Amino acid sequence: MLIKEKVEQAKKLLDEFDIDCWLTFARETSINGDPTLAFLVESDLTWHSSFIITKNEAHAIVGEYDRLTVEELGVYDSVTGFVRGFKEPLLTLLKKLNPKKIAINYSVGSEICDGLTYGMYLTLQNVLSEISFENRLISAEKIVSALRERKSKSEVENIKEAIRYTEEIFDLVAKFIKPGKTEKEIASFMKQEVEKRKLKFAWDEKVCPSVFTGPETAGAHYAPTDREVEKGHLLNMDFGVKVNGYCSDMQRTFYILRDGEKNPPSSVQKGFDVNVEAIEKAKQGIKPGTQGHMIDKIARDTITANGYDEYPFGLGHQVGRFPHDGTALLGPAWEKYAQKPFKNLETGMVFTIEPRLTVPEHGVVSIEEMIIITETGCEWLTNPQKNIILV
Amino acid sequence: MLIKEKVEQAKKLLDEFDIDCWLTFARETSINGDPTLAFLVESDLTWHSSFIITKNEAHAIVGEYDRLTVEELGVYDSVTGFVRGFKEPLLTLLKKLNPKKIAINYSVGSEICDGLTYGMYLTLQNVLSEISFENRLISAEKIVSALRERKSKSEVENIKEAIRYTEEIFDLVAKFIKPGKTEKEIASFMKQEVEKRKLKFAWDEKVCPSVFTGPETAGAHYAPTDREVEKGHLLNMDFGVKVNGYCSDMQRTFYILRDGEKNPPSSVQKGFDVNVEAIEKAKQGIKPGTQGHMIDKIARDTITANGYDEYPFGLGHQVGRFPHDGTALLGPAWEKYAQKPFKNLETGMVFTIEPRLTVPEHGVVSIEEMIIITETGCEWLTNPQKNIILV
Repeated sequence: MLIKEKVEQAKKLLDEFDIDCWLTFARETSINGDPTLAFLVESDLTWHSSFIITKNEAHAIVGEYDRLTVEELGVYDSVTGFVRGFKEPLLTLLKKLNPKKIAINYSVGSEICDGLTYGMYLTLQNVLSEISFENRLISAEKIVSALRERKSKSEVENIKEAIRYTEEIFDLVAKFIKPGKTEKEIASFMKQEVEKRKLKFAWDEKVCPSVFTGPETAGAHYAPTDREVEKGHLLNMDFGVKVNGYCSDMQRTFYILRDGEKNPPSSVQKGFDVNVEAIEKAKQGIKPGTQGHMIDKIARDTITANGYDEYPFGLGHQVGRFPHDGTALLGPAWEKYAQKPFKNLETGMVFTIEPRLTVPEHGVVSIEEMIIITETGCEWLTNPQKNIILV
Repeated sequence: MLIKEKVEQAKKLLDEFDIDCWLTFARETSINGDPTLAFLVESDLTWHSSFIITKNEAHAIVGEYDRLTVEELGVYDSVTGFVRGFKEPLLTLLKKLNPKKIAINYSVGSEICDGLTYGMYLTLQNVLSEISFENRLISAEKIVSALRERKSKSEVENIKEAIRYTEEIFDLVAKFIKPGKTEKEIASFMKQEVEKRKLKFAWDEKVCPSVFTGPETAGAHYAPTDREVEKGHLLNMDFGVKVNGYCSDMQRTFYILRDGEKNPPSSVQKGFDVNVEAIEKAKQGIKPGTQGHMIDKIARDTITANGYDEYPFGLGHQVGRFPHDGTALLGPAWEKYAQKPFKNLETGMVFTIEPRLTVPEHGVVSIEEMIIITETGCEWLTNPQKNIILV
């Protein structure tokens, strides 16, 4: 079971980082759920809930009506239910554990480690001050990052299954795309295939898939339009599904042959080849101990050395329970990425590689592959696109 | 359109509360979405995004790839897209507006107003200190509460529609319940009816509906089990659906007649009547200007005066985009409810009323109605259960 696996992993991480207590503190989790909760519990919680993990123990303090559900996970050494307030049971437990530091889920640089709201932080500070523990709080970024990033075998299996479905649906839509079809029709065909398989979309359905045909499209993150596929268009799609809570995230590029064409024009072929080369070179550079900005630079330089504009985003992000998961990023040293590009890459991390470039008058070449980092380098999780898909 | 309606309402609220700037600040909103965003934008946002509303203006600063989608809402006076970082455009705008106070989405006492994470708060503090604005931050609780609580006509219409579907499905399941059916089978029947109608569940599907048959059940918030319906059982269900993002939340109580019974035994009938009386009296007490703790006391006293244990939770919560929405609560003065029971009730608020009591050897009587507060009192949104449903 995922929860058991992850709580055990968390105890080992506390040992590895020598932090003696990790506290996840949340309320009404269907409203403002800390994304870390998915590793600690299987259902939403109503009242102020505390999950306290040490190097050897795991405890939960939840509203009485949530107690049984948490108890039955069989993961926590104690599950305390309260009716009127969480303060007394939480302080009693913390006094007993008396940890030197209490790691909590906040982070400036990593949104995925930043689940604690400011109001809940103030609540905690105030409550802990009653036992003079308020200065023991530190960021749990290291713990939460590693817990999400070092994927277990079952997590990787789920991602692989999501990828297989994604590839299956890309294969089907390749036969559906025709001149005259609109972006919306193409997206709607894919959505039906997702529903037939009773899968979930990896991200907001409005832009999953997103479909861009021809020159001068919105670029990315934009819902499919009534624009029609035309001969001579480059068409690209961004698409992913979710299996047991784990995502795929892939892009594929298609070209619509003009009358008499057997192959894409050389400008399109060159753009495609350069993009594939950028991916291949980046992949070769990835191994534990390198950093994301180095990998981004390899791909970015390949694109610009061939005369194309650089892509206006990072080369790749981690994938997990969210399509954008984890802290370490294959990205440039831009303000918005903070320290993410400077984190060491580690075994077990799952990344996308997704450079893009524009071919004037035809559209955008954009391919997104997924890899997993191994002890010596990295391996494809996707079957990489090596040829432009001709329509 | 909801967004337009709500952004206009927000400007008026800033005027009413004399706050000259409200800032919603969020990133990767599919991961840690501030629940307020649903009133400001229709889709997920990837990078550090700022929505700045004043008494007369509304502005958005988002990642370049999110710009078009926000622009097309037609609600913002300016939508700025950035590639490398949000700091420069945000500081430029704030310097120009030069607000005395900047209200941000945090709250100790109200989870629904507490969307800003602690890491994002630190980011904002740090960025604002560059223009010496860091001491201008205040809580936006008043604005966010009123925005959620004072429902517009179209919001109420959505809730009413959700209620009609819920009642329709309760009517159907009344014919399905039979001795020998399990809680799981009953829940599964209802889930199918939800799917047939292409509705969404109002809360976590695992416990929507929740079904409790007979004595000694888990009580609440617990998934349906293999326990079978038996003659002589009281059975209660908690169930809601979502229409255009708006929820219903209702409970109904059933009794399974024993051989030879034409009516429930007097202990069951008394429990049911007392519960209905508690609801009716509470409803009569609700009007603008009263406070939730007063209303909770009316129902609680009715239950205990008749010799039953008091229910271990608040009498009723607001309903909106979440089944537990808004700040004001019909609840007792318990630690976990903080100041919520002491907020004045206002016209336009939608509340549940849901007392419960246990009838020994039979099970739990639990009814949950929904009302809307009017200028002079309140009105039913549900068709209130006045008779025990006999199976």
